Amino acid sequence: MSRIYNFSAGPAVLPLEVLQEAQADLVDYRGSGMSIMEMSHRGKEYMAVQEEAQANLRELLGLTDDYAVLFIQGGASLQFAMLPMNFLGRDAVADYVNSGHWAAAAIKQARLVGQVNQAANCEKDIPTRMPEASELTWTPGAAYAHITSNETISGAQWKSLPVTEAPLVADMSSDILSRPVDAANFAMIYAGAQKNLGPAGFALVVIRKDFAERGNKALPAMLRYTTHIENGSMYNTPPCFSIYMLALTTRWLKRFGLAQMHRQNVEKAARLYAAIDSGTFYRGTAAKAFRSDMNVTFRLPTEELEARFCEEASKAGLKGLKGHRSVGGIRASIYNAFPVEGVERLVQFMKDFEKRCG
Amino acid sequence: MSRIYNFSAGPAVLPLEVLQEAQADLVDYRGSGMSIMEMSHRGKEYMAVQEEAQANLRELLGLTDDYAVLFIQGGASLQFAMLPMNFLGRDAVADYVNSGHWAAAAIKQARLVGQVNQAANCEKDIPTRMPEASELTWTPGAAYAHITSNETISGAQWKSLPVTEAPLVADMSSDILSRPVDAANFAMIYAGAQKNLGPAGFALVVIRKDFAERGNKALPAMLRYTTHIENGSMYNTPPCFSIYMLALTTRWLKRFGLAQMHRQNVEKAARLYAAIDSGTFYRGTAAKAFRSDMNVTFRLPTEELEARFCEEASKAGLKGLKGHRSVGGIRASIYNAFPVEGVERLVQFMKDFEKRCG
Repeated sequence: MSRIYNFSAGPAVLPLEVLQEAQADLVDYRGSGMSIMEMSHRGKEYMAVQEEAQANLRELLGLTDDYAVLFIQGGASLQFAMLPMNFLGRDAVADYVNSGHWAAAAIKQARLVGQVNQAANCEKDIPTRMPEASELTWTPGAAYAHITSNETISGAQWKSLPVTEAPLVADMSSDILSRPVDAANFAMIYAGAQKNLGPAGFALVVIRKDFAERGNKALPAMLRYTTHIENGSMYNTPPCFSIYMLALTTRWLKRFGLAQMHRQNVEKAARLYAAIDSGTFYRGTAAKAFRSDMNVTFRLPTEELEARFCEEASKAGLKGLKGHRSVGGIRASIYNAFPVEGVERLVQFMKDFEKRCG
Repeated sequence: MSRIYNFSAGPAVLPLEVLQEAQADLVDYRGSGMSIMEMSHRGKEYMAVQEEAQANLRELLGLTDDYAVLFIQGGASLQFAMLPMNFLGRDAVADYVNSGHWAAAAIKQARLVGQVNQAANCEKDIPTRMPEASELTWTPGAAYAHITSNETISGAQWKSLPVTEAPLVADMSSDILSRPVDAANFAMIYAGAQKNLGPAGFALVVIRKDFAERGNKALPAMLRYTTHIENGSMYNTPPCFSIYMLALTTRWLKRFGLAQMHRQNVEKAARLYAAIDSGTFYRGTAAKAFRSDMNVTFRLPTEELEARFCEEASKAGLKGLKGHRSVGGIRASIYNAFPVEGVERLVQFMKDFEKRCG
């Protein structure tokens, strides 16, 4: 097998040893005579898997018992709706920082439910960036404040997360578990699975139980956070295989810890940004102070060169480098599981490409 | 590897050859150098998988272009909420047939949204059953009429599905694709994946496009059927691996077709019911006219004997026979992928057990 380097923004690269373990056990899970996919979710074997995933996340995120760890189908997109449906009452207002595509998507859904204040708006700024602390205007008594810790498309990332008076909620879809975070500052953290957690199919929701209690009790059961808390994320059949992959991925991650993983992520990103900054051929699209360690975005002198860059990189085994269709350019997504050697290969490819085409 | 016989109600047994193909391709999907789980859902390879799954379902269910085939995360439980949220307006009423645990669960969620009429109620009848045609009282002008084609827990199944004036909606979670159905009679069919479709992680929703158009346009995007139709079930990242397994499972099923699969399902169930009816030791819990071909439910003379039956069966490689915790007894779930030999083994085990303990 010849494994390529997969720079996709999500679904994204998974640790090779996790995939190999899943493959070995796929038809016969640990001598049970069944696949993990075929087992009752109420059976001992699967329950142990889900409990391990929750315990690993508690340990990695340093969560106290005040927090519940939930797995809710529908990805971050359903969270864009569930959050305001639960907490944004008729006479309330929620603060949202509009930092780009995904923040704007969250705001659009919240506005279908209630009143939104944009605590800052740098959605369309070029270079792309996150707001400075001085720009943030929070509403006294807001139902909650919402941020997007990393904008996957623009490649901008909060380097210092804000602390707010209102319950702070963060969409961490594209940088969850990539760095240590003080979870105690958050009322809720959510993240689609398909970047740093495992395959697509659920959102991780970490929520302070007393915050969840404030949710709208008239909602259908599946849309109330309290339902999932009361049932240990087993109100209905969970996406068992995806959570099994999460258990394996978090077990792999625990071997490093978030501090070490963060150092490695910073180092990987720094190499790419150094290559971008080494001349004028490549041009980073995010403001330097907010450059993402997860999604490295840059442009070439022309769109023709960008297309050629992606095509030739792909032939060289460097795949998924095309920027999001809404913005174009190049995007190298280098999540936790993306290997250092792949970054080195891309840096070398960038040098060679510039020599040939610059 | 010694494969056991898995009678679990869901997640449930999958075709062995489907699991083996998924295993072979798990780390390196068809020489791509990536797992199917790692690929962009907008890439050619994954798109072809999702399109195959949709095409297979269209063929198997005989769907015209009037219908959309959707994959929506959250299982049947989220459909219990989405259905009334979309179609049950303030001044409207929806008809629900209360045929048991799962119908009652759907009704409970609908009542959080609007007004429900029970077109018939045999929820607590013993023996468990579906209503006779003469019992059904439909509301003129109802927003929709809802049935549960097979009650997974009680083991009762509609043998002749009703035709209604109001748009007919069916929860077919536990017997989808187990028999030919005239889809043209339905405005919407939905089914949690984890019985006859693949691993847990989504609901299949087959919906007539003009019915979907009637949905509440003020809902958040993820909760509107029209969103998923307009985006070909790619509004957000789909549960790619689960849909890949669906593609393989429906490809496998197409080799037989629904008519042949139905004959085989009836034959498998008939063998078990014959064993139950052969004496007085075993007692079927569903009325004979409504006995399910998917979930065969029965009792033994005492709960102690039932516990011993499950324990000894499990040791003999016949797993997952314990009835649902809400009703007790024995339940043998024998979905499409459950092999005939497993049924024969259970029949033999039942005979032996009766000889020893009867």
